Amino acid sequence: MAELVGNLLVAQSGGPTSVINSSLAGVIQEAGHHDCIEEIYGGANGILGVLNEDLIDINDERARTIEGLRCTPAAALGTCRYKIDFKKKPEKAARDMDRLFEVFQAHNIRYFFYIGGNDSQDTSHKIHEEAVKRGYEMRVIGVPKTIDNDLPHTDSCPGYGSVIKYCATTVMEVGIDVGSMATDDGSCCIIEVMGRSAGWIAAGTVLAKRGQPAAPPHLILLPEIRYSMDSILAKVKETVDAYKYCVMVVGEGIRDERGEEIGADKTRLDSFGHPVLAGAAEKIKEFVQGKLNTKTRTVLLGYAQRAAAHFASLTDSNNAFACGEAAVRAAIAGQSGYMVKIVRGLTPDGAIQWSTGLQPLGDIANVEHFVPRDWVSEDGFLPNEKFVQYAQPLIEGEVKFPIESGLPKYTVLEGNKVEKKLPPRA
Amino acid sequence: MAELVGNLLVAQSGGPTSVINSSLAGVIQEAGHHDCIEEIYGGANGILGVLNEDLIDINDERARTIEGLRCTPAAALGTCRYKIDFKKKPEKAARDMDRLFEVFQAHNIRYFFYIGGNDSQDTSHKIHEEAVKRGYEMRVIGVPKTIDNDLPHTDSCPGYGSVIKYCATTVMEVGIDVGSMATDDGSCCIIEVMGRSAGWIAAGTVLAKRGQPAAPPHLILLPEIRYSMDSILAKVKETVDAYKYCVMVVGEGIRDERGEEIGADKTRLDSFGHPVLAGAAEKIKEFVQGKLNTKTRTVLLGYAQRAAAHFASLTDSNNAFACGEAAVRAAIAGQSGYMVKIVRGLTPDGAIQWSTGLQPLGDIANVEHFVPRDWVSEDGFLPNEKFVQYAQPLIEGEVKFPIESGLPKYTVLEGNKVEKKLPPRA
Repeated sequence: MAELVGNLLVAQSGGPTSVINSSLAGVIQEAGHHDCIEEIYGGANGILGVLNEDLIDINDERARTIEGLRCTPAAALGTCRYKIDFKKKPEKAARDMDRLFEVFQAHNIRYFFYIGGNDSQDTSHKIHEEAVKRGYEMRVIGVPKTIDNDLPHTDSCPGYGSVIKYCATTVMEVGIDVGSMATDDGSCCIIEVMGRSAGWIAAGTVLAKRGQPAAPPHLILLPEIRYSMDSILAKVKETVDAYKYCVMVVGEGIRDERGEEIGADKTRLDSFGHPVLAGAAEKIKEFVQGKLNTKTRTVLLGYAQRAAAHFASLTDSNNAFACGEAAVRAAIAGQSGYMVKIVRGLTPDGAIQWSTGLQPLGDIANVEHFVPRDWVSEDGFLPNEKFVQYAQPLIEGEVKFPIESGLPKYTVLEGNKVEKKLPPRA
Repeated sequence: MAELVGNLLVAQSGGPTSVINSSLAGVIQEAGHHDCIEEIYGGANGILGVLNEDLIDINDERARTIEGLRCTPAAALGTCRYKIDFKKKPEKAARDMDRLFEVFQAHNIRYFFYIGGNDSQDTSHKIHEEAVKRGYEMRVIGVPKTIDNDLPHTDSCPGYGSVIKYCATTVMEVGIDVGSMATDDGSCCIIEVMGRSAGWIAAGTVLAKRGQPAAPPHLILLPEIRYSMDSILAKVKETVDAYKYCVMVVGEGIRDERGEEIGADKTRLDSFGHPVLAGAAEKIKEFVQGKLNTKTRTVLLGYAQRAAAHFASLTDSNNAFACGEAAVRAAIAGQSGYMVKIVRGLTPDGAIQWSTGLQPLGDIANVEHFVPRDWVSEDGFLPNEKFVQYAQPLIEGEVKFPIESGLPKYTVLEGNKVEKKLPPRA
């Protein structure tokens, strides 16, 4: 195959993670080894930056900065939730696609890497197909990223190992705290984690138990399963009776037996007339406090969980980096239209060996991967040993990071912009 | 002075911290150096355990376990919120006091150390006075502890440095995350931290700025100051206009211009007819989302902040340990009725030098120490350089802790009980 000479464009998309910048570093450092890649550009705020011709000159950054990305949370290039939606807005999507290829051509972009979750893989897929249709020679590879761990075909998603390492640590610490305050009155703490439809994050906190039945978390509620408020209450009561306290973890999107989101508060409507999302943990807290004489508190980790690079998983960070490297290698080798996936193998002596593979983007887009039902106890309140076997290796090792004046010192790109060549987007 | 020979009793009280066990380790290890202290007992669940004669045999614990306490969060002996209340329940309080001295005498307790906050120092004070009145020779020393940092006369309270190190790190990480998602729509994140009447914890997150005006957190709201919702809204708008995003930290007890808690939701009553405490962050979120076209999310750190030993301050942990040691030394030297306090000094070359001192317990009990008004900007929305000068040294250094299978490995006491000598409490 003839070598494809040109410039590289990499962008980040969707909700950030602790290790999405590690994938970015993987792309950049690998690209530096290949002469056929001339300039390395970053799209500012994902595909939105590409549409606006807001490109960052990565070759102008210091090598130290790129290395620093390996321990820096959030999206160093900026991110967006912009979707090129051919179904709902076909005309706008067609105009967007025209504009993207104008930008690609103006800057001789021949390698495009998009680091993101489900929607971003869909965008990459469409760009790949469009390039083929237009006869514009370009290699498009998707790099996986999502704390939600809901992409199919990959062993796991970069970002997931770190979020559960942090969440499990937090649940362990909160558990010891609540346990040490447990007197005869009993107390309960409900920790809400992210995961609107897939319960991977909530499930991951089972690692805090280290296999001890009495250790917190005592109950883990997943969005994949249906729970009646009465069954939750019975479980809390049973746990408090046994241990004098109860630590519960809930995924934000958990549903009741009618399939309705527990976090939705129908008694209060927002300005659009939609039920206010009061939070699943808050709703269960009010219910438990109303029915049991048990002091109940909540923790809502929110964005803190996906940005907690101060206790990120080294395995996760290394896999994220490897995905970035593998994307560039695949593109150089002539591949396009694939997402890099993480593959779990075994060494001859039985240790886990991580590698990467490729999966056609068409297999990824709009397919969600859920926690298998048989990885959860029959009553639905706790992931079982199958889940633990899967998740434990993902949290091994800690990412080192520099500290200045007692706080992490994270890296910021200088972010010098590439000179624009086109008129502003219409 | 004649040497006082007998047994030692130490107990922990109130909400735990990341370093309250470090103070416990200080008491135990120092006590081990003095022959006049025969047995070392721990009260299970604070003064409640003493009343119930639930004593833990500390000399039966392994030395490794005691050393492990220096990096283990929560109260290893268990804690309680039990108050001996001579004002509201004088008869019950008198009975409790009788019972305490029965237990002290039955187990020849001659040294009593209570690690806790305001209420606990009050309890220690009463026990000291009662011992004097009864002519029972015993040395009583209070050891300070509270993330709230609201005890008077001490430079700072053990637990405070660690909680603000963790909270500032979280705010920094959330800030990078939200900043990287900031596009033209703007986004806002409100992080709620503990502090019902004193704003020390919220104020401490200003360290995440590292003196950069544009860096998050952009706004910090303290319970000591009054804020109108309109002034908050104007500040959010100004910040989002300038930076496209806004990170706000609020103490849980912040109040509006009428002095009413913002977190109280009067439109919803609980089963007792009291307003539901919806959370200050949630209330401000609803208000901001209703008035500005700004995506707003909240983080509620709750118990996670005071248990986050995985990123505790070494300075704080060392000071906590030193307070435990100093309590024992003071008691051996014949002192009673004091709380150990932390003293900040300077070495000849201008570095900070920490030491301890003693303050009469009567000066401590029921006095709350607030953030000085002149440590906060005139508009009340950000602590100033005076605050930073005070707080920065408290977060220096990191506590090392063992890790097993990717998660912290914290220490648990075996907790063997001392044989009871009395009939059960009436």
